[in-house]
Amino acid sequence: MATPREIRVGLIGFGTIGTGVVKMLTARRAAIDAILGARLRLVRIADLDTRTDRGVRLPKGVLVNDVRRILDDPSIDIVIELMGGYDPARKFMLEAIRAGKSVATANKALLATHGAEIFKAAARARVDVGFEASTGGGIPIVRVLRDAVSADRNRGVYGIVNGTCNHILSTMAADGTGFATALAQAQADGLAEADPTFDIDGIDSAHKLVLLSALAFGADVRLKEIHTEGIRSVEQIDVAGARDLGYAVKLLAIGICDGRRVTARVHPALVPEAHVLAGVGGAFNAIYVDGESLGSSMYYGLGAGMMPTATAVVGDVIELARNRLTGTASVVPPFGVPTLRRLPVVPMGDLRTAYYLRIMVRDRPGVLAEIAGLLGHERISIATVIQQGQGGGAVPIVIRTHEARERDLQAALKRIRRMRAVQGAPVCLRIEENLA
Amino acid sequence: MATPREIRVGLIGFGTIGTGVVKMLTARRAAIDAILGARLRLVRIADLDTRTDRGVRLPKGVLVNDVRRILDDPSIDIVIELMGGYDPARKFMLEAIRAGKSVATANKALLATHGAEIFKAAARARVDVGFEASTGGGIPIVRVLRDAVSADRNRGVYGIVNGTCNHILSTMAADGTGFATALAQAQADGLAEADPTFDIDGIDSAHKLVLLSALAFGADVRLKEIHTEGIRSVEQIDVAGARDLGYAVKLLAIGICDGRRVTARVHPALVPEAHVLAGVGGAFNAIYVDGESLGSSMYYGLGAGMMPTATAVVGDVIELARNRLTGTASVVPPFGVPTLRRLPVVPMGDLRTAYYLRIMVRDRPGVLAEIAGLLGHERISIATVIQQGQGGGAVPIVIRTHEARERDLQAALKRIRRMRAVQGAPVCLRIEENLA
Repeated sequence: MATPREIRVGLIGFGTIGTGVVKMLTARRAAIDAILGARLRLVRIADLDTRTDRGVRLPKGVLVNDVRRILDDPSIDIVIELMGGYDPARKFMLEAIRAGKSVATANKALLATHGAEIFKAAARARVDVGFEASTGGGIPIVRVLRDAVSADRNRGVYGIVNGTCNHILSTMAADGTGFATALAQAQADGLAEADPTFDIDGIDSAHKLVLLSALAFGADVRLKEIHTEGIRSVEQIDVAGARDLGYAVKLLAIGICDGRRVTARVHPALVPEAHVLAGVGGAFNAIYVDGESLGSSMYYGLGAGMMPTATAVVGDVIELARNRLTGTASVVPPFGVPTLRRLPVVPMGDLRTAYYLRIMVRDRPGVLAEIAGLLGHERISIATVIQQGQGGGAVPIVIRTHEARERDLQAALKRIRRMRAVQGAPVCLRIEENLA
Repeated sequence: MATPREIRVGLIGFGTIGTGVVKMLTARRAAIDAILGARLRLVRIADLDTRTDRGVRLPKGVLVNDVRRILDDPSIDIVIELMGGYDPARKFMLEAIRAGKSVATANKALLATHGAEIFKAAARARVDVGFEASTGGGIPIVRVLRDAVSADRNRGVYGIVNGTCNHILSTMAADGTGFATALAQAQADGLAEADPTFDIDGIDSAHKLVLLSALAFGADVRLKEIHTEGIRSVEQIDVAGARDLGYAVKLLAIGICDGRRVTARVHPALVPEAHVLAGVGGAFNAIYVDGESLGSSMYYGLGAGMMPTATAVVGDVIELARNRLTGTASVVPPFGVPTLRRLPVVPMGDLRTAYYLRIMVRDRPGVLAEIAGLLGHERISIATVIQQGQGGGAVPIVIRTHEARERDLQAALKRIRRMRAVQGAPVCLRIEENLA
């Protein structure tokens, strides 16, 4: 056998995940080289901050502050993009691709918004874009959906894909704390950003649902087509009320496809306690898949964090390296199918599901009757009502409805909101009874 | 582009899984051809029974009773072996491999006992052996461990990999039935064989642990090195007693590796109720992996049944076909690493864990004191004791120990068994506290 080939890697972005990747490539160098039968070498890291001590030793000259030292170096085979954000990450990635380099990234925001452009450029340049780390962190959901169950017709994906939200909701359930306290605690634990908007408003989950819909259904769903609600409205009383009814509250990214139309929505939902998704606690992520042939399956792991995410990135780098060594880069399409299909998105108003409603009212005779009347007027029937407390202040009325149509429910809520006795906006959570 | 190439497939064994594979290849033909950019065609099925109606339509001449029509046909690229058993499956598989055909199989018993010979022949012939369906049925654990987390150092795998046992134990927990009733029910539901030995005595799980140890640790563990206990000794009182202590009883296939030595054991175990594995009910399987970098992850799905298993087989056939089309067959080693390592197996006596003991005794003063004394003599300290019932007959003493050494515990049990007041063999279940 000839001298083993060398695959040269450049890393753009030396933050937390980047540091994890460097640690793993260093610690596992011998194992990785044995897997590949080639030498995989990290030759350059570009980051504006070249001074902070990340706790990893690098040979002199590896860390530079000029990204051109990677993009313009024709000896570099693979670029790992971990700077995040839209630009200049997009520009750098496209440049690397057009220069014939394969790219590994964890950048879901970029792929969810500019994926079409990036994957098209990669196909043209015959290089790979690895993005296992972008959805579910360390959970190998890309490989599962792209390779393992590629022949199955997937009917639904239900993802807990934001660890920040799951941690907050789990803390609220376990400790009886309110949303604000649980968020503050997640921030103190490094599990939530100082500005948590992307996470707790569901935007991060929607980014991932774009990728999951492409992987699971071969569907080209656009970010703006996804109905997106976050968890800001969920209070301790709702988590406790859901539990009393036999449910856990989870922020779900839901994709459903019957082959003709696709449903794509992100919102807090009530999951039956007996369902495996209900047991996914803390910062863990899980993606539950309902396949026509495979039936129920679930993939569970850490969706964020330095080393779990780095594991996914390095797994991609090994695959990208192997494909370059064998001359098979870009043979496997990024989402498993040759082209994504544009499918009509089911309007949110057409959704049929059961609902959990919590309405704060001034406790006066006849209020419940009026609410029931307004629901009945929209053909929404009530399964259970719990009216807590009594006395002068605002008290909650918690209602579980039978299956109803979203459009009708929103119409009823609009009228309920206008009632004199009602204080604040009613909380409305969908119950995912089909997961039972 | 030239006329798309054709990949020709032969199936040996037209039983339940074989029928599922034929159904899937037929129903999903267009999707599979699109994924491959080639025509994948099932051209021949060999089975001794050519008359039973399996509910699938086949063109004339496809179903034959002579396996030579597959093995001797040079136009066939891929052989699916689903006849099961050791011989002649082994002989047919080796013949197919030596004839340059790639092979997909669900035959864990064969791979666990003759895997070395088969994989060696495949490497020499430069063909692939796909075996995703052999471990965890529809759960893509082979791809996960081989491809996705290939760079990580796995510390442990904990698998619920036998659906029959999990169904029996779940039924006992949910319905309060005894072992015999739950087994009979599983048999009536088609979830247990008429002769359930392989399943309930843990042998099937041990077969799968051979493959899991190779995938997770790159370790060559032999079947005879695996300490194997089944679930026959578990009674309703143990399932209930475990629950009272906060545990679920599961048959686990456990592999642990510190890089120097490997632990490989199959036995019923107490899993903390809060752990995700405890929520794996019914006929479902799950494999929990503890990785140095990835941390905790779990892969959950149906481990048996026609269509889930067929999904895994067809996923393999697609990969095998792609590798033939791109000339990359045998590039990825079957277990992800170039060679498996022989590692010393930790003797069972060296195990340190906590134990659940259930001892049936004639209820007489001083019996508990005597048992406690015998345990203490072997330096085993008791965490909790529950002594149920009172009166003339045999009553159970349930003991949870602190962490102890297996050798000491077995020595104590030997003495306890000899006590006059003790009736029958004490039941001893290991508590997997580390899963908390």
